[in-house]
Amino acid sequence: MTEPTLGNNIVIQVGIIVRDIETKARAWSEILGLPMPNIIITDTMDKTQAEYHSEPTPARAKLAFFHMGQLDVELIEPIDAPSTWKDQLDQHGDSLHHIAFEIKGMQEKISYLDSKGIRLVQRGEYTGGRYAYLDSIAQLGTVLELLEND
Amino acid sequence: MTEPTLGNNIVIQVGIIVRDIETKARAWSEILGLPMPNIIITDTMDKTQAEYHSEPTPARAKLAFFHMGQLDVELIEPIDAPSTWKDQLDQHGDSLHHIAFEIKGMQEKISYLDSKGIRLVQRGEYTGGRYAYLDSIAQLGTVLELLEND
Repeated sequence: MTEPTLGNNIVIQVGIIVRDIETKARAWSEILGLPMPNIIITDTMDKTQAEYHSEPTPARAKLAFFHMGQLDVELIEPIDAPSTWKDQLDQHGDSLHHIAFEIKGMQEKISYLDSKGIRLVQRGEYTGGRYAYLDSIAQLGTVLELLEND
Repeated sequence: MTEPTLGNNIVIQVGIIVRDIETKARAWSEILGLPMPNIIITDTMDKTQAEYHSEPTPARAKLAFFHMGQLDVELIEPIDAPSTWKDQLDQHGDSLHHIAFEIKGMQEKISYLDSKGIRLVQRGEYTGGRYAYLDSIAQLGTVLELLEND
Protein backbone atom coordinates (compact mmCIF):
# COMPACT_ATOMS: atom_id res chain seq x y z
CA MET A 1 0.00 0.00 0.00
CA THR A 2 1.43 3.32 -1.08
CA GLU A 3 1.31 6.00 1.61
CA PRO A 4 1.65 9.74 0.89
CA THR A 5 5.06 10.79 2.19
CA LEU A 6 3.83 14.28 3.05
CA GLY A 7 1.10 12.74 5.24
CA ASN A 8 -1.70 13.38 2.73
CA ASN A 9 -2.26 13.96 -0.97
CA ILE A 10 -4.68 16.89 -0.71
CA VAL A 11 -3.71 19.98 -2.70
CA ILE A 12 -4.98 22.84 -0.54
CA GLN A 13 -3.68 25.77 -2.53
CA VAL A 14 -2.66 26.80 -6.02
CA GLY A 15 -0.51 29.94 -6.17
CA ILE A 16 -0.44 32.43 -9.04
CA ILE A 17 2.17 35.18 -9.35
CA VAL A 18 0.79 38.45 -10.66
CA ARG A 19 2.24 41.87 -11.40
CA ASP A 20 -0.87 43.80 -10.32
CA ILE A 21 -2.94 42.06 -7.68
CA GLU A 22 -5.73 44.65 -7.48
CA THR A 23 -6.54 44.27 -11.20
CA LYS A 24 -6.18 40.48 -11.19
CA ALA A 25 -8.27 39.98 -8.04
CA ARG A 26 -11.01 42.15 -9.50
CA ALA A 27 -10.92 40.14 -12.75
CA TRP A 28 -11.16 36.85 -10.83
CA SER A 29 -14.12 38.21 -8.91
CA GLU A 30 -15.96 39.82 -11.82
CA ILE A 31 -15.28 37.33 -14.62
CA LEU A 32 -15.73 34.15 -12.56
CA GLY A 33 -18.45 35.52 -10.26
CA LEU A 34 -16.57 35.09 -6.99
CA PRO A 35 -16.63 37.26 -3.83
CA MET A 36 -13.94 39.96 -3.93
CA PRO A 37 -11.35 39.06 -1.26
CA ASN A 38 -9.40 41.43 0.91
CA ILE A 39 -5.86 42.04 -0.25
CA ILE A 40 -3.38 41.59 2.57
CA ILE A 41 0.35 42.26 2.86
CA THR A 42 2.72 39.77 4.44
CA ASP A 43 4.43 40.83 7.66
CA THR A 44 7.81 42.52 7.81
CA MET A 45 10.93 40.37 8.08
CA ASP A 46 11.29 40.86 11.83
CA LYS A 47 8.03 38.94 12.17
CA THR A 48 8.29 36.50 9.23
CA GLN A 49 11.99 35.69 9.70
CA ALA A 50 11.84 35.07 5.95
CA GLU A 51 14.83 33.38 4.40
CA TYR A 52 15.66 33.01 0.71
CA HIS A 53 18.37 30.43 0.02
CA SER A 54 19.16 30.46 3.77
CA GLU A 55 19.75 34.23 3.93
CA PRO A 56 17.36 36.74 5.52
CA THR A 57 15.29 38.59 2.92
CA PRO A 58 13.18 41.75 3.24
CA ALA A 59 10.92 40.55 0.42
CA ARG A 60 7.20 40.68 1.06
CA ALA A 61 4.06 40.08 -0.99
CA LYS A 62 0.49 41.20 -1.41
CA LEU A 63 -1.89 38.23 -1.19
CA ALA A 64 -5.52 37.54 -2.09
CA PHE A 65 -7.31 34.22 -1.54
CA PHE A 66 -10.28 32.78 -3.43
CA HIS A 67 -11.91 29.83 -1.64
CA MET A 68 -12.70 27.15 -4.22
CA GLY A 69 -13.72 23.90 -2.57
CA GLN A 70 -10.84 22.01 -0.92
CA LEU A 71 -8.33 24.56 -2.15
CA ASP A 72 -7.66 28.26 -2.24
CA VAL A 73 -6.41 30.02 -5.31
CA GLU A 74 -3.81 32.45 -3.95
CA LEU A 75 -2.82 35.51 -5.96
CA ILE A 76 0.64 36.80 -5.04
CA GLU A 77 2.17 40.14 -6.02
CA PRO A 78 5.84 40.28 -5.04
CA ILE A 79 7.14 43.30 -3.14
CA ASP A 80 10.89 43.85 -3.05
CA ALA A 81 13.37 40.98 -3.44
CA PRO A 82 14.86 38.42 -3.40
CA SER A 83 12.06 35.88 -3.29
CA THR A 84 10.79 32.91 -5.25
CA TRP A 85 7.81 35.11 -6.09
CA LYS A 86 9.98 37.81 -7.71
CA ASP A 87 12.10 35.20 -9.50
CA GLN A 88 9.01 33.70 -11.09
CA LEU A 89 7.60 37.08 -12.12
CA ASP A 90 10.90 38.08 -13.71
CA GLN A 91 11.34 34.78 -15.54
CA HIS A 92 7.78 33.89 -16.53
CA GLY A 93 5.54 36.93 -15.98
CA ASP A 94 2.03 36.38 -14.63
CA SER A 95 1.93 32.63 -14.12
CA LEU A 96 1.03 29.66 -11.95
CA HIS A 97 3.71 29.25 -9.28
CA HIS A 98 3.05 26.42 -6.83
CA ILE A 99 0.76 23.80 -5.39
CA ALA A 100 0.61 23.51 -1.62
CA PHE A 101 0.11 20.74 0.92
CA GLU A 102 -0.61 21.12 4.62
CA ILE A 103 1.87 19.09 6.63
CA LYS A 104 3.01 18.38 10.19
CA GLY A 105 6.72 18.40 11.02
CA MET A 106 8.18 21.04 8.76
CA GLN A 107 11.87 20.31 9.26
CA GLU A 108 11.39 16.57 8.84
CA LYS A 109 9.47 17.07 5.58
CA ILE A 110 12.08 19.53 4.28
CA SER A 111 14.83 17.04 5.12
CA TYR A 112 12.96 14.20 3.40
CA LEU A 113 12.51 16.21 0.20
CA ASP A 114 16.15 17.35 0.35
CA SER A 115 17.13 13.66 0.37
CA LYS A 116 15.31 13.41 -2.97
CA GLY A 117 17.26 16.36 -4.42
CA ILE A 118 14.47 18.87 -3.83
CA ARG A 119 15.97 22.00 -2.28
CA LEU A 120 14.47 24.51 0.11
CA VAL A 121 14.23 27.90 -1.61
CA GLN A 122 12.36 30.11 0.80
CA ARG A 123 10.73 29.84 4.19
CA GLY A 124 9.02 32.08 6.69
CA GLU A 125 6.59 32.41 9.56
CA TYR A 126 3.07 33.78 9.56
CA THR A 127 0.59 34.21 12.39
CA GLY A 128 -0.23 30.68 13.48
CA GLY A 129 2.18 28.80 11.30
CA ARG A 130 4.97 28.68 8.73
CA TYR A 131 5.59 28.01 5.07
CA ALA A 132 8.35 26.63 2.91
CA TYR A 133 8.81 26.69 -0.85
CA LEU A 134 10.83 23.91 -2.42
CA ASP A 135 12.24 23.87 -5.94
CA SER A 136 10.89 20.61 -7.29
CA ILE A 137 10.56 21.79 -10.88
CA ALA A 138 13.25 19.37 -12.12
CA GLN A 139 11.60 16.45 -10.31
CA LEU A 140 7.86 17.26 -10.35
CA GLY A 141 7.43 20.12 -12.83
CA THR A 142 6.28 22.59 -10.19
CA VAL A 143 7.36 24.41 -7.07
CA LEU A 144 5.90 22.82 -3.92
CA GLU A 145 4.77 24.78 -0.90
CA LEU A 146 4.47 23.18 2.53
CA LEU A 147 2.18 24.84 5.06
CA GLU A 148 2.25 23.97 8.76
CA ASN A 149 -0.36 25.41 11.08
CA ASP A 150 0.13 25.16 14.86
CA MET B 1 -25.22 37.15 -3.85
CA THR B 2 -22.34 36.40 -6.17
CA GLU B 3 -22.87 33.33 -8.38
CA PRO B 4 -20.03 31.52 -10.15
CA THR B 5 -20.37 32.30 -13.85
CA LEU B 6 -18.98 28.90 -14.85
CA GLY B 7 -21.67 27.18 -12.78
CA ASN B 8 -19.34 26.28 -9.92
CA ASN B 9 -16.05 27.34 -8.35
CA ILE B 10 -14.49 23.89 -7.92
CA VAL B 11 -11.03 23.44 -9.40
CA ILE B 12 -11.05 19.81 -10.56
CA GLN B 13 -7.65 19.68 -12.24
CA VAL B 14 -4.25 21.29 -12.25
CA GLY B 15 -2.20 20.65 -15.39
CA ILE B 16 1.59 20.47 -15.56
CA ILE B 17 3.53 20.45 -18.83
CA VAL B 18 6.54 18.14 -18.78
CA ARG B 19 9.20 17.19 -21.28
CA ASP B 20 9.46 13.55 -20.13
CA ILE B 21 6.27 12.16 -18.63
CA GLU B 22 7.66 8.73 -17.74
CA THR B 23 10.38 10.24 -15.52
CA LYS B 24 8.08 12.86 -14.02
CA ALA B 25 5.25 10.44 -13.28
CA ARG B 26 7.69 8.08 -11.58
CA ALA B 27 9.04 10.97 -9.48
CA TRP B 28 5.54 12.02 -8.45
CA SER B 29 4.80 8.44 -7.47
CA GLU B 30 8.06 7.69 -5.67
CA ILE B 31 8.79 11.02 -3.98
CA LEU B 32 5.22 11.80 -2.89
CA GLY B 33 4.18 8.18 -2.23
CA LEU B 34 1.33 8.04 -4.74
CA PRO B 35 0.16 5.12 -6.90
CA MET B 36 1.89 5.08 -10.30
CA PRO B 37 -0.74 5.93 -12.92
CA ASN B 38 -1.04 4.57 -16.42
CA ILE B 39 0.31 6.87 -19.09
CA ILE B 40 -2.17 7.33 -21.90
CA ILE B 41 -1.94 9.00 -25.30
CA THR B 42 -4.67 11.27 -26.60
CA ASP B 43 -6.56 10.10 -29.68
CA THR B 44 -5.62 11.00 -33.23
CA MET B 45 -7.11 14.11 -34.78
CA ASP B 46 -9.79 12.23 -36.68
CA LYS B 47 -11.26 11.35 -33.30
CA THR B 48 -10.40 14.46 -31.28
CA GLN B 49 -11.20 17.00 -34.00
CA ALA B 50 -8.60 19.07 -32.20
CA GLU B 51 -8.33 22.71 -33.19
CA TYR B 52 -5.62 25.20 -32.30
CA HIS B 53 -6.59 28.81 -32.96
CA SER B 54 -9.55 27.50 -35.00
CA GLU B 55 -7.40 25.37 -37.34
CA PRO B 56 -7.17 21.56 -37.23
CA THR B 57 -4.01 20.37 -35.48
CA PRO B 58 -2.39 16.92 -35.42
CA ALA B 59 -0.88 17.65 -32.00
CA ARG B 60 -1.39 15.00 -29.33
CA ALA B 61 -0.15 14.48 -25.78
CA LYS B 62 0.81 11.80 -23.30
CA LEU B 63 -1.19 12.16 -20.08
CA ALA B 64 -0.94 10.85 -16.52
CA PHE B 65 -3.40 11.61 -13.73
CA PHE B 66 -2.81 11.64 -9.98
CA HIS B 67 -6.03 11.70 -7.95
CA MET B 68 -5.59 14.14 -5.08
CA GLY B 69 -8.88 14.84 -3.34
CA GLN B 70 -11.30 16.96 -5.36
CA LEU B 71 -8.77 17.45 -8.10
CA ASP B 72 -6.45 15.54 -10.35
CA VAL B 73 -2.92 16.63 -11.05
CA GLU B 74 -2.50 16.00 -14.78
CA LEU B 75 0.95 15.60 -16.27
CA ILE B 76 1.06 16.43 -19.98
CA GLU B 77 3.87 15.69 -22.41
CA PRO B 78 3.24 17.35 -25.78
CA ILE B 79 3.56 15.30 -28.96
CA ASP B 80 3.88 17.19 -32.23
CA ALA B 81 2.48 20.71 -32.69
CA PRO B 82 0.90 23.21 -32.69
CA SER B 83 -0.74 23.09 -29.29
CA THR B 84 -1.01 25.15 -26.14
CA TRP B 85 0.98 22.34 -24.50
CA LYS B 86 3.92 22.70 -26.90
CA ASP B 87 3.80 26.50 -26.68
CA GLN B 88 4.11 26.33 -22.91
CA LEU B 89 6.97 23.81 -23.01
CA ASP B 90 8.87 25.94 -25.52
CA GLN B 91 8.33 29.17 -23.61
CA HIS B 92 8.53 28.06 -19.98
CA GLY B 93 9.91 24.50 -19.85
CA ASP B 94 8.45 22.09 -17.31
CA SER B 95 5.78 24.20 -15.62
CA LEU B 96 2.25 24.52 -14.31
CA HIS B 97 -0.08 25.13 -17.25
CA HIS B 98 -3.76 25.38 -16.30
CA ILE B 99 -6.52 24.98 -13.76
CA ALA B 100 -9.71 23.28 -14.93
CA PHE B 101 -13.41 23.53 -14.16
CA GLU B 102 -16.14 21.10 -15.16
CA ILE B 103 -18.94 22.95 -16.92
CA LYS B 104 -22.17 22.38 -18.82
CA GLY B 105 -22.80 24.22 -22.10
CA MET B 106 -19.36 24.49 -23.67
CA GLN B 107 -20.17 26.95 -26.45
CA GLU B 108 -22.10 29.23 -24.12
CA LYS B 109 -19.23 29.32 -21.62
CA ILE B 110 -16.66 29.95 -24.36
CA SER B 111 -18.81 32.80 -25.70
CA TYR B 112 -19.17 34.30 -22.22
CA LEU B 113 -15.43 34.26 -21.62
CA ASP B 114 -14.82 35.68 -25.12
CA SER B 115 -17.05 38.61 -24.15
CA LYS B 116 -14.54 39.26 -21.34
CA GLY B 117 -11.60 39.26 -23.75
CA ILE B 118 -10.57 35.66 -22.93
CA ARG B 119 -9.92 33.84 -26.21
CA LEU B 120 -10.29 30.19 -27.08
CA VAL B 121 -6.87 28.71 -27.85
CA GLN B 122 -7.50 25.00 -28.32
CA ARG B 123 -10.39 22.59 -28.18
CA GLY B 124 -11.05 18.94 -28.82
CA GLU B 125 -13.15 15.89 -28.09
CA TYR B 126 -12.37 12.88 -25.94
CA THR B 127 -14.40 9.76 -25.24
CA GLY B 128 -17.42 10.99 -23.31
CA GLY B 129 -16.77 14.70 -23.50
CA ARG B 130 -14.80 17.67 -24.73
CA TYR B 131 -12.27 20.23 -23.53
CA ALA B 132 -11.33 23.80 -24.27
CA TYR B 133 -8.29 25.84 -23.24
CA LEU B 134 -8.68 29.58 -22.94
CA ASP B 135 -5.90 32.13 -22.75
CA SER B 136 -6.81 34.05 -19.62
CA ILE B 137 -3.25 34.80 -18.56
CA ALA B 138 -3.68 38.55 -19.09
CA GLN B 139 -6.91 38.58 -17.07
CA LEU B 140 -6.44 35.82 -14.45
CA GLY B 141 -2.75 34.91 -14.54
CA THR B 142 -3.36 31.36 -15.81
CA VAL B 143 -4.76 29.37 -18.70
CA LEU B 144 -8.23 28.01 -17.95
CA GLU B 145 -9.47 24.64 -19.11
CA LEU B 146 -13.17 23.86 -19.39
CA LEU B 147 -14.20 20.19 -19.30
CA GLU B 148 -17.68 19.03 -20.33
CA ASN B 149 -18.69 15.42 -19.81
CA ASP B 150 -21.84 14.09 -21.51
